[in-house]
Amino acid sequence: MRGAVLYGPRDVRFEERDAPTIIEPTDAVIRMSATCICGSDLWPYRGINPIAGPTPMGHEYCGIVEDVGRAVASIKPGQFVIGSFFASDNTCPHCRAGYQSSCRHRALVGGAQAPALRVPLADGTLVATRDVPSDDAIPSLLALSDVMGTGWFAADAANVKAGATVAVVGDGAVGLLGVLSAKQMGAGRIMAMSRHASRQKLAREFGATDIVTERGDEGVARIKDLTKGVGADSVLECVGTHESMMQAIRSTRPGGSVGYVGVPHGVTLNGEELFYTHVRLHGGPAPVRRFLPDLISLVFNGKINPGKVFDLTLPLDHVAEGYRAMDERRAIKTLLRP
Amino acid sequence: MRGAVLYGPRDVRFEERDAPTIIEPTDAVIRMSATCICGSDLWPYRGINPIAGPTPMGHEYCGIVEDVGRAVASIKPGQFVIGSFFASDNTCPHCRAGYQSSCRHRALVGGAQAPALRVPLADGTLVATRDVPSDDAIPSLLALSDVMGTGWFAADAANVKAGATVAVVGDGAVGLLGVLSAKQMGAGRIMAMSRHASRQKLAREFGATDIVTERGDEGVARIKDLTKGVGADSVLECVGTHESMMQAIRSTRPGGSVGYVGVPHGVTLNGEELFYTHVRLHGGPAPVRRFLPDLISLVFNGKINPGKVFDLTLPLDHVAEGYRAMDERRAIKTLLRP
Repeated sequence: MRGAVLYGPRDVRFEERDAPTIIEPTDAVIRMSATCICGSDLWPYRGINPIAGPTPMGHEYCGIVEDVGRAVASIKPGQFVIGSFFASDNTCPHCRAGYQSSCRHRALVGGAQAPALRVPLADGTLVATRDVPSDDAIPSLLALSDVMGTGWFAADAANVKAGATVAVVGDGAVGLLGVLSAKQMGAGRIMAMSRHASRQKLAREFGATDIVTERGDEGVARIKDLTKGVGADSVLECVGTHESMMQAIRSTRPGGSVGYVGVPHGVTLNGEELFYTHVRLHGGPAPVRRFLPDLISLVFNGKINPGKVFDLTLPLDHVAEGYRAMDERRAIKTLLRP
Repeated sequence: MRGAVLYGPRDVRFEERDAPTIIEPTDAVIRMSATCICGSDLWPYRGINPIAGPTPMGHEYCGIVEDVGRAVASIKPGQFVIGSFFASDNTCPHCRAGYQSSCRHRALVGGAQAPALRVPLADGTLVATRDVPSDDAIPSLLALSDVMGTGWFAADAANVKAGATVAVVGDGAVGLLGVLSAKQMGAGRIMAMSRHASRQKLAREFGATDIVTERGDEGVARIKDLTKGVGADSVLECVGTHESMMQAIRSTRPGGSVGYVGVPHGVTLNGEELFYTHVRLHGGPAPVRRFLPDLISLVFNGKINPGKVFDLTLPLDHVAEGYRAMDERRAIKTLLRP
């Protein structure tokens, strides 16, 4: 089969790779219904996270189970499944506490930008839908594999409550789905920080009540203005730079919460400053597995439509163009069809 | 009157100062029943926090109201009152959210190691007891002014729940009262990190089930051992150094919480490390005012006895010896009687 492999900065190739097979008895192999490119794939694509050698890309996936190892009990061939980018056993103490992305046996899923994928720890990682979904539901179900689960975790970690005043730092797909999550959780006011017309439009569609175009200290000042000097109850940090993290912390009211899901790059927190902000901090790699069953129901019931973040759909063999479009911010997120 | 004034490292003098009077119409002046020395007073005493000039010391107090300004409505002369080290209006949005130590009009109370004290924003800062307490209740009531409220906030910020596994970093008076607070909140297991026999004894008396003498990475390893590799649900950071903060974070399970109340000195958090710990962080200067009414009831009902942290009682004019005893760790905490 052919799949996406990153060779170096801005050098993604679609080339022959070994087809996945069952290696461990807990594995499953799935035939991809759709896959996509993640904002976090851009870190190595841009050379900011160096790679050791040619690297199969992609960690978002949904599809039909083709084969399972002999130790797999609950997942069956023929099922439509979605899983997280972190494989988990879903039985260890960290999984039982709802932190499957800190599972004691966690393993990163990689190489999903391909027609087929091996998923470790299939029983603990994959969630099967009751029926095989119709084709038009695929984008929203695929989004649950990472980007929607991550936006949801940002809102969950930021303690978004009914009626809350929420700010979202970052207008990438995760930030936009953070807006959708906050809306779903009943937020009363959602201030989306964005400078791009197409993203502002989608943010409003997902439930944003205010658009803030300022950044850094000016962005903080604008959030304070909009909240009578108080700050937001909940702030979702969906970027991962030092500036965006500080913008999030400083936009939050004392006793309010920052949920941060942007993978930190160069973030350093001064303990004394943090102390006097009285802000709650929680975040990390989203425990997508925890949220999958509920999010699948919300998609099937038509309550959420996270697939709208895919504003570019390409055949899988055009994957390199998919990266270019996201790198140049021509696309929010690229869906790839095998 | 005479009160404690710090002139430089290890130079506390008991000397003539102006007696306090009503300056603002929202002020009260109280006659001190007892005052004490705080662990945080040792930062400037040791020269770690430099002072600009001679500084009246002390911020923990309880006593009888002598006089109030014309704008004071609820506090009356003759009442026995306790207040926080941060004066607050108790009406601004931050106060109403329970973060009185981030009050928009907050003011540090200073110079309490004296026979009388001016307290700003008396209505919002002071809490009067129903009756004037008996003399033997004074130490426990005085403790509510800071050290007990701070230990309580550490446990509250660390989300201590019934049955929880708790670790406490720091065996000063705040850490010991963090143990007491966690016990009061129903913790199932409390691991106190302490190397000093007298403090270990008091920790056990307050409810510690395990004593951990190791520090740093070894302390973390010991907490992990004691929790079958999982980590604690809630960790109270009651020191404020970089080492103690990292010890607290690394001792916590994914999804668990660190409540930090030690004033940070040189604490720097690496965003990427924090991200992958999945730990919740909350802390800051304790909003003591939020907890005062409930804590006063707990003392009056004999449910808690935080005054036990005072293992040295001196007449106020021996204040310099009180500092020496704490600096040399001969005393946990010194109570001063005017």
